[in-house]
Amino acid sequence: MPKTKRPPSAARQRFGQRLRELRQARGWTLEDLGEKADLAWNYVAQIERGERNVSIDNMAALADAMGTTLSVLLQEEAPTVGTGS
Amino acid sequence: MPKTKRPPSAARQRFGQRLRELRQARGWTLEDLGEKADLAWNYVAQIERGERNVSIDNMAALADAMGTTLSVLLQEEAPTVGTGS
Repeated sequence: MPKTKRPPSAARQRFGQRLRELRQARGWTLEDLGEKADLAWNYVAQIERGERNVSIDNMAALADAMGTTLSVLLQEEAPTVGTGS
Repeated sequence: MPKTKRPPSAARQRFGQRLRELRQARGWTLEDLGEKADLAWNYVAQIERGERNVSIDNMAALADAMGTTLSVLLQEEAPTVGTGS
């Protein structure tokens, strides 16, 4: 509930991209991650694309499912996940 | 939108506590932080108490207002903010 309308945050984009990188590094499908995090796979897809203003509880569920922490998923610099980039 | 009902995440509690610690370390009131983050002060109070499932965009606005990052606000170990504890 911001008082005024804001554009999507850079953090939202970064979280989505990091989530996708880590998921793909593990060789998991959207369905795999959705099942582990108890979230619908198409909702996970929207989060990865930065289309959803995801809540902290769902972010925590995704981090837990990936066996990592929110702090890692949100850090400014990319972690070493071997994505080849 | 979890498929099943979940209790509030530990991350939600930790984020709220960290936010309050940092705000108080800066000597800011809830009104000060709310003004800087463009959020209502009573909403910020609810976030600090872990009562709100805050979204990533609002979390980013709060981190920006505090001059810190989401990664710092969400890290597992307490940062050195000089709270005397």
